Amino acid sequence: MNLILLFDTDFISADRVRVTGRRFEHVRDIHRAHAGEGLSVGVLNGQMGKGMITAIGDDAVEMDVRLEMDPPPALPLTLIMALPRPNVLKRSLVCAASLGIKRMILLNFFRVERSLWNSSALRPEMIREHLILGLEQGKDTVLPQVDIHERFKPFVEDQLPALAKGTLGLVAHPGTGAPPPQNVRGPVTLVIGPEGGLIDYEAEKLASLGFQMADLGPRILRVETVLPYLVGKMF
Amino acid sequence: MNLILLFDTDFISADRVRVTGRRFEHVRDIHRAHAGEGLSVGVLNGQMGKGMITAIGDDAVEMDVRLEMDPPPALPLTLIMALPRPNVLKRSLVCAASLGIKRMILLNFFRVERSLWNSSALRPEMIREHLILGLEQGKDTVLPQVDIHERFKPFVEDQLPALAKGTLGLVAHPGTGAPPPQNVRGPVTLVIGPEGGLIDYEAEKLASLGFQMADLGPRILRVETVLPYLVGKMF
Repeated sequence: MNLILLFDTDFISADRVRVTGRRFEHVRDIHRAHAGEGLSVGVLNGQMGKGMITAIGDDAVEMDVRLEMDPPPALPLTLIMALPRPNVLKRSLVCAASLGIKRMILLNFFRVERSLWNSSALRPEMIREHLILGLEQGKDTVLPQVDIHERFKPFVEDQLPALAKGTLGLVAHPGTGAPPPQNVRGPVTLVIGPEGGLIDYEAEKLASLGFQMADLGPRILRVETVLPYLVGKMF
Repeated sequence: MNLILLFDTDFISADRVRVTGRRFEHVRDIHRAHAGEGLSVGVLNGQMGKGMITAIGDDAVEMDVRLEMDPPPALPLTLIMALPRPNVLKRSLVCAASLGIKRMILLNFFRVERSLWNSSALRPEMIREHLILGLEQGKDTVLPQVDIHERFKPFVEDQLPALAKGTLGLVAHPGTGAPPPQNVRGPVTLVIGPEGGLIDYEAEKLASLGFQMADLGPRILRVETVLPYLVGKMF
């Protein structure tokens, strides 16, 4: 927790907050902070700054906050990800949020196990919880938007063309031979397929919309490793 | 498990193996493989190839193996990492091994909590277990070497100069202003400091050996995110 994320309900006056629960425990047990110390804070979807601890009790920490900084710029990358297993989903949400990704789509592919769509990790409050962990890690306040599309074809045909317009469309797809582009810097729409990869129909469908296939080499990496790897390469 | 790693004790004849335990359960429950199917296999520190399932029973799978491929080339990066918390250590070992890193040093820094040196995650069999998970993920057979140095100064003074010789020395160090280099491709010695960063003495000591400081920007990333991010940027 490199930034304590604050919510409207934490404010006891215009510039004073009272923080309880997990965040309080983190300040007490990990930061081991005392009255008079300053911590990085930020308001959800708002500004960031410093919180000066005025009191730390048994179940809450109070801080005077000064919020004068904008959050860091968003990464211009839209991530379209095959729905992974719950633990991978949680880690990927934290990872993506910490990298500054602001738009994610969880999509069905042929090789996504049907049962994954019933996972409790897909509940909005679970998704939000892991995005918040990522913002706290990456020192950001802007909550990413995560959309869920349980059908591949209607999403790709009806929504993806507008979403990907004006961006570099890229599919992480082993076995295609072309390495991923470097120093793109402009906006990117990145598709990461399921374990086992895309089927031909899916790859062709994406290629027909102008998506390029990118081969990451002989090593197969976890989603939460592929993502920072490609972000490092492209931005 | 994108590759089933084989050990000498698995071989029941020159080209036949019998695999039990966690690997067998993975083949049965995740691959859901049947007799006649082929799986990627590789011998620890040896060659890779295909295993054709000849029988799958209640507690073992038998395969005829053909091993004709070399493992993928190692990544020319030596990772020197401040000893992190046990869970971060485990994830970092998996991540580093999956990326093809073959040499890692776990080092003490001023901001490493002393108690972490007593963690059971540092036991050789635990380190090996997580390296093997990384090899299975990244489809590689060559076990990385992990050394542990509980004292910063003697390691940096007596061993680091020879280790880093002829490589680009780089320290991931927030607040220094210089972005990490791109497209290095040559050998790199990368230092990733502890949560909270290096103290001035440590940064100066490394700088005196020719290490460059690299600032990754305003976002603070987890070790297992920084690592693929920098690998993507540099290689």
